[in-house]
Parts: sequence; structure tokens; C-alpha cells
Amino acid sequence: MSIAVIYGSTRENGNTEVLTDIAIQDLDVEKITLRDYHVLPIHDQRHDEKGFTRVKDDYDLLIERMMKHDVLIFATPIYWYSMTGIMKNFIDRWSQTMRDVNFPNFKEQLGKKKAFVIAVGGDNPQLKGLPLIQQFNYTFQFMGISFEGYVLGKASRPGDILNDQLAFVSATELNLKLKTS
Amino acid sequence: MSIAVIYGSTRENGNTEVLTDIAIQDLDVEKITLRDYHVLPIHDQRHDEKGFTRVKDDYDLLIERMMKHDVLIFATPIYWYSMTGIMKNFIDRWSQTMRDVNFPNFKEQLGKKKAFVIAVGGDNPQLKGLPLIQQFNYTFQFMGISFEGYVLGKASRPGDILNDQLAFVSATELNLKLKTS
Amino acid sequence: MSIAVIYGSTRENGNTEVLTDIAIQDLDVEKITLRDYHVLPIHDQRHDEKGFTRVKDDYDLLIERMMKHDVLIFATPIYWYSMTGIMKNFIDRWSQTMRDVNFPNFKEQLGKKKAFVIAVGGDNPQLKGLPLIQQFNYTFQFMGISFEGYVLGKASRPGDILNDQLAFVSATELNLKLKTS
Amino acid sequence: MSIAVIYGSTRENGNTEVLTDIAIQDLDVEKITLRDYHVLPIHDQRHDEKGFTRVKDDYDLLIERMMKHDVLIFATPIYWYSMTGIMKNFIDRWSQTMRDVNFPNFKEQLGKKKAFVIAVGGDNPQLKGLPLIQQFNYTFQFMGISFEGYVLGKASRPGDILNDQLAFVSATELNLKLKTS
Repeated sequence: MSIAVIYGSTRENGNTEVLTDIAIQDLDVEKITLRDYHVLPIHDQRHDEKGFTRVKDDYDLLIERMMKHDVLIFATPIYWYSMTGIMKNFIDRWSQTMRDVNFPNFKEQLGKKKAFVIAVGGDNPQLKGLPLIQQFNYTFQFMGISFEGYVLGKASRPGDILNDQLAFVSATELNLKLKTS
Repeated sequence: MSIAVIYGSTRENGNTEVLTDIAIQDLDVEKITLRDYHVLPIHDQRHDEKGFTRVKDDYDLLIERMMKHDVLIFATPIYWYSMTGIMKNFIDRWSQTMRDVNFPNFKEQLGKKKAFVIAVGGDNPQLKGLPLIQQFNYTFQFMGISFEGYVLGKASRPGDILNDQLAFVSATELNLKLKTS
Repeated sequence: MSIAVIYGSTRENGNTEVLTDIAIQDLDVEKITLRDYHVLPIHDQRHDEKGFTRVKDDYDLLIERMMKHDVLIFATPIYWYSMTGIMKNFIDRWSQTMRDVNFPNFKEQLGKKKAFVIAVGGDNPQLKGLPLIQQFNYTFQFMGISFEGYVLGKASRPGDILNDQLAFVSATELNLKLKTS
Repeated sequence: MSIAVIYGSTRENGNTEVLTDIAIQDLDVEKITLRDYHVLPIHDQRHDEKGFTRVKDDYDLLIERMMKHDVLIFATPIYWYSMTGIMKNFIDRWSQTMRDVNFPNFKEQLGKKKAFVIAVGGDNPQLKGLPLIQQFNYTFQFMGISFEGYVLGKASRPGDILNDQLAFVSATELNLKLKTS
């Protein structure tokens, strides 16, 4: 069981990362921190005769790193009741990769993976984070990814997450689950 | 009643634009086509001592154009059960604008506006588009924007939207509503 | 194509029935009006050694009538953001029927049917009715029923529904769809 | 802080009750077990000239007991992705009580209370239970009740809930919260 964490935060050491640290404690994981890379938005050329134009940015490299692992943890702050724009751009590009000859069987291989979501927001995330979870759920279903669980944390100012005891125990549970699976 | 449409599509003349054309027929609207501009993702500096660093891109210009209008129509294809990444980046930046001295009363002014959503997707949008609508709803609620209605259309290949009769009548109804309000 | 409408209203000629009348205009349908029958709540005996005790009420008769048709329309006012209690009790009993030797292949036969939902509420049904639609969706998915569409109408006082033009056109569209399929 | 639990289960000692026992450990609570009482479905007479006909059943008694407490815990198995029919019938009747001279200020008094939801289901409750939570959320919002948290547990056969460690810790957290508030 090999694990990758895809981080959608735009600031360092934010609450989402602190919460994720609990979930991955004592585990060897590959950290893919999207804000450190250049990923362009998708340009939808699905219906162009020549298909997608190859894009020069860091995206392919990140996908290669992600695809080496069996378990994917998507860790994102909740911005406006969904994932961050930089994580959304990363996922939007999957539509291009599904048609990329350099990544044959992309969907099929993704469909063998397990996924978890860790999301932290300031405005009642246990309720208002639910549409985000449903969006991930539909996305994973489309790809055939097994959605194994999620942790929603409440935090706004730096360090706030330490006051969310339920998030703490949920992340600890996730850590146990990752270690024993 | 002055109307702005914010387009989240990444290709020209896509199904979302065709459907939106029905909704804005014979109306004078300002079209803000996000793909034609450069908008950087937010860098969350809410908690930095010095606050946000000013960003050099087209975002402020777009906000100025948007804020002149009473009615906002957010028109986006559904990518992975949510708005497109370029539209998400645009909305993410609102968190910065709320703290920008150049836009005093940003939230208060937004809170006087009315909003509609037009979204088109290929995978059962009447059901799987609902989390997107809920996400917009929470966003508008936070800002105090009045969410006046939405149209969900089903389409995948170019022109498909013309086969979605329910979307057509919904967009026609929206057109009537915009004309008489 | 044979059609049954299951009515969950608790008052006669309510807004839900008026809206449904548009959807079934000029069609021969079997009307199952739950309030006119005696249907007890389920008593969960799934795990009892002897299984479920046979219940003496009108439920079995209603199921027999329902199962004769290819298309099921669930028409319910929205009470507290979900279907009415009498419709919920009717659906809850399906768990018993799935284990009833008098209805072998109940799930399999249901799984061949198509379903529509018509729901009318007073408090922003286009948004706050979405959890209800999702509940129906999961229920239909479990049974294998094909969820073909839904109409949400806004109304509170008698006759209000006539002012909801979008509901009117949606119901008219549904009528057309039922006639041509 | 005085606590009432409203139980929607239809069988004794089910998984929902076991999970709720953890949440109310060492607390003095009033248990309102709906299956032990006779509560008729609402008959919507909101628009009748004479208003609602008084109903002879146990409902008023249950409401009186419920209204004496500051905190309400709604504990229900998930039947078909929603609360049980007997709990739905109980809540549906609130619309009558809001117009009942014997319960003046019913809504206002409810609006001072805090509520929790405990729900247990067998089919992926962490995801497919979310519409139920949203439905409760809208209901509490309408009444002005403060929705303080929820616990979703996964269980199907008797005793299953003991294997859901996350539900266990969530219920334990809730217990702590109830004790210290």
C-alpha cells in the first residue's frame, strides 16, 4: 500500500496540512503540493479534429507521481464550499489525460485506486462541506475509484484546527486505517 | 436592471454559451468571458501581517466590470460535477477582494445583487449537478446575494444542448423573467 | 407503456395534484392515492428468526396495483424538505416486500420500471427540494429503477402552483415525454 | 441543560439505540420512543376555514414531553436514505402544532433549542446519509433550532454498529460535548 497526498492549499502549514499530518503520521507518503507547481487550466479540445494540444507545464509530472500509488488522499481547504481552484484545475485536466496516448489506461488504472478526502473550512463544514464531498464522490464513481472515507475539519485562523476534537479523532482513525490496510 | 454574464467555458461557442444565448436573447448584457483573461489563483494571505500582496493580472478589471451590474449570471460547463477551474479561481479571489481597500464594501455591494446559474454537463446534470447548485447557493448566501434561479442542461458533444427541450424552455423562462424584472 | 401515479398528498386537489394533472393530461393512468388507504408503518423484523409478521392493511393491494405498470410517478407535497409521512411509510414497507414470498422477484421487477418525481413545496423547492430528489435517486438506484426526471413546483396556498410558470412548462414537457415514449 | 432523545427506530435495541447509548452515557435524558405511541399522519387542513381538526392520539403528549427540554437528539435508523416513516409522521405534525392554540409560541420555543442527529444505515451512510442531514438542517433552520452536530453510523445486522469505530468515537465526542455544555 503506497500513499500519495495531493495538497490543494495555497498557504504553507495551513489547517488542512496540520490535520493531514495526523492522518499520515508514521507513514511513508509522497506529498504532491500543487501550489509549488505550474498547472494550467484545461482547454477543452475534446471535440477538435486534432484533439488536445500538448501543454507545457508541470501537470504530466504530477500525474506520473500520483499514478504510482495505490491510495490517494485529496487534502484541500474549503474555499467557497468546494476544493481550491488550483486543485480544481488539476482535476479538470484529467479529462485531457483520458485522451492522452502517453497515459494509456489512465481511467482503468485510476479505477484500481482508493481515495480519501480531507477538507477544512471555517463555515460549518460538517454541513456546508457536504456538496464538496458529493462532488468528489461523483468524480470517484466516474473513474471507478473506491471512495474510502473523508474527514471534515472546522478551522479558519491558523491553528484553529487543533480545537476541533472530532476532526482530530477522525484523522486518527484514518491514520489507523491506513496503517492496517 | 443591468446584467452581466460570467462565462466559465474553456472552449468557444460551447453548449453552455448556446444555452445562455437563449436566456439573454434581446437583452443588453455585458459578457465577461473568463478564458480570455489572465486570472491567477488566490494565494491565501488572510492571516499574514501585511495582508494580501497586490496581484498583477486582469482580475480587478473583471471585478470592476461585474460590479456595475444588478444581475449576475454565472454560466459554466460542469467539469467534474462542479464549475470549471477558471471560474473557481475567479471566485476564490473574492476572498482577497473582501480585504482590498480598493474595493471597500465589496461584500455589501454584492449583497444587493441577484444571481442566476446556467450549467451544462454530460453526466446526468439534473441529479449530479445538484451539489454544484448547492455550492453556489452557500456562496451566494454568504455574500447576501439573492439566488433567483438556475438552469441545468444536458449536453456533451457540440450542439447537443439543442436536444434538451427542458433546458430550452427553462432558459426561455429565464429570458422572460429577465425581461420583465 | 402503462403508468401509475402514487400520490402522497394529505389534502384533496392540492397543488401537487394540480401540477400532476398537467403531466398526465390525456393519458390513461392508474391513480394510487395513499391517503385513501390504510398503510401501517414497517416494523423492522428483518433479523427475526421467523421474519416479518404478515400485516393486515391495504398495503399489499396497493403494491399489486403499482407493480402492473411500467412507469411510476411519485407525486408528493414537500413536507419538511422530504416526502410526506404517508408516502414514506409506504416506501418503508418495500423492505418487507423484498422478503415476502408472495412477491417473489419484487426488486427485480421494480428494477425494470421507470420513475418520475413531482414534488411541490413552499420554501424554495428548487434548492431545498434537492435532498428529497437525492433520496429518491438513491432509492431508485438501490432498486435498479431508472430515474427519468423530476418536476419541482413552488406553491403554498391552494392554487399557488398556477403561478409557477417553470413548473407548468416542466410538467408539460413531462406530459409530452410520457406520450411519446 | 435538559435532554430529550426522540427515537425513530421500529425495532428494539437496534443499532441506532446502541450508538445513541454511547452518546447519552451517564446523562439523565428523557427517552421518547415513537414506536411505543400512536401518532397519526398529518391531515393538511392549513387552508380550511376552520383550520385543523383536533386529533385524538398520543402526539400532543409527546410534544409536551419534548418541549420541556433544551436539547433534542433525533435518533433514527436510515430507511431509504431518510428518517423512518414514524419519525416523519411525528415531524409532519409540527405544521399542525404551529397553528394550535394549545401550543402558543411553539415555533418560538423550538427556536431556542439545540439539536443533534444520530442516524445509522447500512448503505454507505457517510455519503448516502447526507441528504437526510441536509433535510434535518433545513427543518431546524426553518424553526430556528441550532443544529449542533450529527453522527452517522454504518450498520445493518444487529450489533454491526460496534464495528464502526468512527461512529463510536463520534458518539463519544458527542457525549463529552453534552456533559460539558
